[in-house]
Amino acid sequence: MDIMNDEYYMSLALDMAERAQGQTGINPVVGCVVVQDGALAGVGTHLARGTPHAEVHALNMAGNKAKGSTVYVTLEPCSHYGKTPPCSDRLIAEGVKRVVVACEDPNPRVAGTGIEKLRAAGIQVDTGVLRDRALRLNERFIKYITTGLPYVTLKTASTLDGKIATRTGDSKWISNEASREIVHTLRHRHQGIMVGVSTVIADNPQLTTRLTVDGLHPARIVVDSRLRIPMDCRLVTDKAAPTIILTTELADREKQNALEAAGLTVIRCGDGPRVNLKAGMARLGEMEIGSVLLEGGGTLNGAMLEERLVDRMMLFLAPKIVGGHNAPASFSFDGYERMSDAVELEQLEVERIGDNVCITGVPVWK
Amino acid sequence: MDIMNDEYYMSLALDMAERAQGQTGINPVVGCVVVQDGALAGVGTHLARGTPHAEVHALNMAGNKAKGSTVYVTLEPCSHYGKTPPCSDRLIAEGVKRVVVACEDPNPRVAGTGIEKLRAAGIQVDTGVLRDRALRLNERFIKYITTGLPYVTLKTASTLDGKIATRTGDSKWISNEASREIVHTLRHRHQGIMVGVSTVIADNPQLTTRLTVDGLHPARIVVDSRLRIPMDCRLVTDKAAPTIILTTELADREKQNALEAAGLTVIRCGDGPRVNLKAGMARLGEMEIGSVLLEGGGTLNGAMLEERLVDRMMLFLAPKIVGGHNAPASFSFDGYERMSDAVELEQLEVERIGDNVCITGVPVWK
Repeated sequence: MDIMNDEYYMSLALDMAERAQGQTGINPVVGCVVVQDGALAGVGTHLARGTPHAEVHALNMAGNKAKGSTVYVTLEPCSHYGKTPPCSDRLIAEGVKRVVVACEDPNPRVAGTGIEKLRAAGIQVDTGVLRDRALRLNERFIKYITTGLPYVTLKTASTLDGKIATRTGDSKWISNEASREIVHTLRHRHQGIMVGVSTVIADNPQLTTRLTVDGLHPARIVVDSRLRIPMDCRLVTDKAAPTIILTTELADREKQNALEAAGLTVIRCGDGPRVNLKAGMARLGEMEIGSVLLEGGGTLNGAMLEERLVDRMMLFLAPKIVGGHNAPASFSFDGYERMSDAVELEQLEVERIGDNVCITGVPVWK
Repeated sequence: MDIMNDEYYMSLALDMAERAQGQTGINPVVGCVVVQDGALAGVGTHLARGTPHAEVHALNMAGNKAKGSTVYVTLEPCSHYGKTPPCSDRLIAEGVKRVVVACEDPNPRVAGTGIEKLRAAGIQVDTGVLRDRALRLNERFIKYITTGLPYVTLKTASTLDGKIATRTGDSKWISNEASREIVHTLRHRHQGIMVGVSTVIADNPQLTTRLTVDGLHPARIVVDSRLRIPMDCRLVTDKAAPTIILTTELADREKQNALEAAGLTVIRCGDGPRVNLKAGMARLGEMEIGSVLLEGGGTLNGAMLEERLVDRMMLFLAPKIVGGHNAPASFSFDGYERMSDAVELEQLEVERIGDNVCITGVPVWK
């Protein structure tokens, strides 16, 4: 049984925010709960950029019960005019008594000023309730708002010996159904899905979100230094989601024209033999793609690691050993000279998903 | 809080048996608890081959409290004269009222006859209490007693991308201290530790049990088709434990003489270019080595898998990605053609050991 306390209400606010992941673009997800006289009076969550913030929905629902209430909000209320008026002003105008905040807004335009404004108006403000969960929920937003670069989640599904296919290229199946549903949920929660062109050529993937419920389809991003993407592949022909090709100055102009005529966006990143991935990430950030799910293959995973462009890794491991000296691996790169130079994962989480194991962590580079 | 019931006493009997793992040779580990009038009256565990069984120790301790008692024993009491007289006779002579057995003895010389004998004498016998834990505890004994072959536990310690060293051969450190202590505990629990000669040449390992408490040193077994083992390596010179070399008919006779003069045992298994591993395992079984901890490297691990000679795998994963196309891997073999042919692990267990993850399972071959 849950105990009624600040965490009791904040966890509901976080639950609501969590369900809105994927639909707020580069905005954070935020949930809000209004409590008056020991009872729930209003709930709200931010649904999409340009639409009301969580506090507004919850206060609207509370109506005249907002006065004297305690308001739980997962992110510091804004104090500036953005696409909507400042929430701190609204909270003051409603006469709320106390505001409980999970975490401060990392947005430099807010950063503590919302809390200050509330306190100046005589409202009691308590912060840090379930802060870690709130920060984790908005890690993608935080990276983007503070750096302008998309947050990159690298996801692999491999055997226990790190293979993503047999030596003959057979890859059906590595992960189990439940793991694949988690991957589709991850797709919904990111604004872009990125793969290397070899994956497109080998698998002709759809890279859409397919679940037992409807989901959103993120932009599809292909790293393709020489524009080798086949004109008849699904990504070019199916128009299921915006599709972006990152290539180099060396790529063929006519192929670019053909791809653009098919509705794709082609971006040239650098004039070297391989796509300048740092420049590519910056360009995606400028296009307001604030988060990218990196789905391989091994060469692109390795290159993104070497460029230190990965913010989180999720490794789905199937309980199999398949062998094969040159069978495709999840990470295919020259590697480090010393074991102490290896990329390490911190904030490790280990979850069993049926007969699969998901190991999640945040990479730390030496 | 534990609830007092049959499991309450049986789990103590199993705890005692567990602590004796490694010291009973090819005998099972067995624990026994005697309970009289609602109180513990005797405890015992089998300590070594040729010494009294668990029941004898526990009944001796119980003395005249054995009469009318309930006796919990982790393995069916024996009914035959082996190195000691049959325990079922002793239980009947003591006048015990009830015997609770975790699992039947798989030894074909016992196999239910102990339980029948007790029942025939009017003793109530209940079986199957904590059976799964009891079977797991004696999985090595069960394999050996039913097949004559040693039970093989394959243990690896690798990065998340399956590497056991960097491309330059650096392997310090992959696993953490706690994982290494588990490995030394595993060594104590097996009668042999097996490695390939490349590991001996590369690392000059001791292959002894090193813990904060004393442990037993199993026999050291090296698979070395051409007798390449250096005469000045620790395994040849330190006399810390019996050392056995499995080789082929093609190996040099003079080198064999030199190794034997140094106190090692050299066994020729097959006349092919590689050691006939099936024959090797049979020879180890004949030498009453009932369990082997296989500690790599990748080529030997792969070969043992291909020969289906592995009974359990324990993969310690460090949260690192090190890369390197040809960096040494935990499993180095030609591999399977189809993903559906891959070796799968059943009875999966996933345990976090600090920042390491240990994935354990029983391989199933297709």
